[in-house]
Amino acid sequence: MQRTHNFSAGPSAIPTEVLAQAQAELLDYRGTGMSVMEMSHRGKVFMEVAHQAESDLRELLAIPANYKVLFLQGGGKGEFSLVPMNLMGVAGRADYVNTGHWSEGAIQEARKYGAVDVIASSADRGFTYVPAQTAWSPNPGAAYRHICTNETIHGVEYFWTPEIGDGVPLVADMSSHILSRPLEVSKFGCIYGGAQKNIGPSGLTVVIVREDLLGRAHPLTPSVFDYAQQAASDSMLNTPPTFGVYLAGLTFQWLKKRGGLAAMEAVNVAKAGELYGCIDASGGFYRNTVEKADRSRMNVPFFLKDESLNAEFLRQAEARGLSGLKGHKAVGGMRASIYNATGLDAVMALTAFMREFAQRHG
Amino acid sequence: MQRTHNFSAGPSAIPTEVLAQAQAELLDYRGTGMSVMEMSHRGKVFMEVAHQAESDLRELLAIPANYKVLFLQGGGKGEFSLVPMNLMGVAGRADYVNTGHWSEGAIQEARKYGAVDVIASSADRGFTYVPAQTAWSPNPGAAYRHICTNETIHGVEYFWTPEIGDGVPLVADMSSHILSRPLEVSKFGCIYGGAQKNIGPSGLTVVIVREDLLGRAHPLTPSVFDYAQQAASDSMLNTPPTFGVYLAGLTFQWLKKRGGLAAMEAVNVAKAGELYGCIDASGGFYRNTVEKADRSRMNVPFFLKDESLNAEFLRQAEARGLSGLKGHKAVGGMRASIYNATGLDAVMALTAFMREFAQRHG
Repeated sequence: MQRTHNFSAGPSAIPTEVLAQAQAELLDYRGTGMSVMEMSHRGKVFMEVAHQAESDLRELLAIPANYKVLFLQGGGKGEFSLVPMNLMGVAGRADYVNTGHWSEGAIQEARKYGAVDVIASSADRGFTYVPAQTAWSPNPGAAYRHICTNETIHGVEYFWTPEIGDGVPLVADMSSHILSRPLEVSKFGCIYGGAQKNIGPSGLTVVIVREDLLGRAHPLTPSVFDYAQQAASDSMLNTPPTFGVYLAGLTFQWLKKRGGLAAMEAVNVAKAGELYGCIDASGGFYRNTVEKADRSRMNVPFFLKDESLNAEFLRQAEARGLSGLKGHKAVGGMRASIYNATGLDAVMALTAFMREFAQRHG
Repeated sequence: MQRTHNFSAGPSAIPTEVLAQAQAELLDYRGTGMSVMEMSHRGKVFMEVAHQAESDLRELLAIPANYKVLFLQGGGKGEFSLVPMNLMGVAGRADYVNTGHWSEGAIQEARKYGAVDVIASSADRGFTYVPAQTAWSPNPGAAYRHICTNETIHGVEYFWTPEIGDGVPLVADMSSHILSRPLEVSKFGCIYGGAQKNIGPSGLTVVIVREDLLGRAHPLTPSVFDYAQQAASDSMLNTPPTFGVYLAGLTFQWLKKRGGLAAMEAVNVAKAGELYGCIDASGGFYRNTVEKADRSRMNVPFFLKDESLNAEFLRQAEARGLSGLKGHKAVGGMRASIYNATGLDAVMALTAFMREFAQRHG
C-alpha cells in the first residue's frame, strides 16, 4: 500500500498512525466485541472515549476551567448561524472583521440574526493581509467581535491575538489552523471549528465557549445547537457523532505523543518555511501574493507565472503521489494545505517536484 | 476476535461485512492512497461515493423522482427543530400524533416555531399502541401532519400508512425502522431519520422530501439546514459527514446483495416472531405490554415478572455475549433492539438464553 502525500484543504490528511489504530480496532474495540461506532453513546466504554478526548483537548490547548468544550455537528459553516443564534442575544448586533471567503460567509449568515458591522476588511487588496487592530473600528455595544484566524482559501493567518479593551467577547473561527500551535484561549469568548482539518473526519464540530456566555440563545435556536443545553448535557443532548469523537481523541493522543502544540508549531514553521522558501527562490516561476507576515502556515496558495502550465503541473504532481494541489475556484492557481498530518517529508517531496518542474519548464 | 450479539438501541450494530470492507480500505480507498475520510468532498472519487449511496437508497426505497434525498447532520433530534423551521411556513401550525417519548420530543421542539395540535395520543394507555386514524382530529389548515412511525423506547410501530385526504403533507420520523421493510414514499411529504440504527454511524441524518415542499423555510433557518439550499447543492452546501455517507453507502449495497427490503422484511418478521414468541410462551416470566398488532419489529421492550432478577439477567446475558439489553430509563426493564444488522442467529442466541434463564429462575 502506497499512501499519497495529501495536500487537500479539507477533508484532509489524517495521521497514518491514527488510521492504523482505528483500522486495528474497527470490528472489536479493545475486547468489547464491537466497533466504537456500534456502541451506545451513554455506555461506560464510549463515555470514557469522549471524556478522554475532551480531557486531552483541554490539556493540549490549556483550556481554562471556566470554558466548556462542546462536540457538536454542522461544521464551521453551521456555526456561522449558531454563533449569532447563541451569542447575539439582546444586543442584536455584532462586529466582524472581513479577511476573506470564510469571514464573508460568516458575515452573510450572521446578518439573518441581527445587525452586523464590518469593522475592518482586507478586501481592498484582495484579502492578502490581516488588517492591523489599529485599523479596526469596533463598536463597544457589540454582542461579540468575530474573526477568522486562518483563511483557508486566501492563505492568510493571524499571528497575533487581538487585545480587546472594551469587554466585548472575541469569537474566532479557527477551523483550519486550530491545534497547529499553542493558543491563548483566555483571550477569546468562543472558539469554533469544523474538525476536518487538524482534528478528525468531517461531521464533527468543536466549540470552546466561556461559561458566562451561555444562556443567551435566541428562542428559535434548535435545542441540539443550544450551547447551554449541550454544555449541561456534556454534548449528549442528542447522539454525538461517536466515531468522529473517537478519531479526534486518537488525534489528540497522537499530538501529545509528538510533544504537544509547541512541538507541532516547530514542525509547522519548518514545513511552511520550506514551501514558501521554494516559492520565493523560484525567480518568479511560482508566486504567493500574501503579505509575508500574514502568510498562513497551513494553507499555501501559489500561482505559476505561466498559468497555461497549470494542468501539466497538476498532472505531473499527481503522478508523483502529490495530491490535492488544485487551488480553490475562488482564487485559482494552486494551493498546498499542510496541516499537522501532512509531514515535512510530504512538503519536501512537493518542493523537490516544484524545483524540478520549474527547471524543466522555466 | 469474537463479535458480540449487539442489541443496542442506537448507535447500534453495523453489518460485520460492512465494517470488514471499511477496515480493508481504511488507509487506501481503492488505490487512491488515502482514506475516504481524507478526500475532498468535491473530488471525483468522493462525489461518486455520494452519488452511488443516493442512487442505491433511491432504488431500495423506490423513491419517486419528485423527492430529494438529503444527507445532513444533527440527527433525528436536530430534525425535531429543522422540520418545523423548513415546513411550518406561513400556516404556522402543524398536527402531531403522540405515540411516545420521541413523538413528545418532536412536539416539544416544534412548539418553539408555531402552534402544535396534538391530534391523537396513546398516553392514556402508557404508549402501548398506535391510535387508529379514525381517532385522529386533524386540522385541514395544518402545514403538515407529523408521526413517529416507530417508537424506539416503547416498542410501538405503525404497520399501516395513514391515508391523508385533506392534502396536508404527512411527515414521519422513521429513524428507528427505516430500511427494515418496503415503504410507500409517495404517501409522505417528508421522511427523516438519524442514521445510527439501520443506515450507518451516528452523525449522519437522511431527509427525503417532496420537491414542492421546498422553499418555505423560516428566515432564521441556518443555511446548512435549509432543505431547499441543501437540495440545490446536492447536500454539499457544507462539508458532509463523508465517512458516514460512505458507510451508509456500503450498508445500502449490503441490503441490495441480501435481496433488498422485501427480503429484509421477511428476516425481520422471523426475528420478531422468534423473540415475541419466546416472551409470550414464557408463562408470564417475561412480558411485553404493547398491543400485539402494534408491536415493533425493531425494538422489543420486555419485563421480567420478578424485577429483582433484572441485574442478574443482564449479567448473565453479557457473559453470554448478549449486549445492550438494558431497557431505557424512561420505561425500565429490558429492551432488545433487533435492527437489520442484528441477525436471526443473534435473536436465537437471545431466546435460547431467555428460556434457560426462565427455567433456572422460574
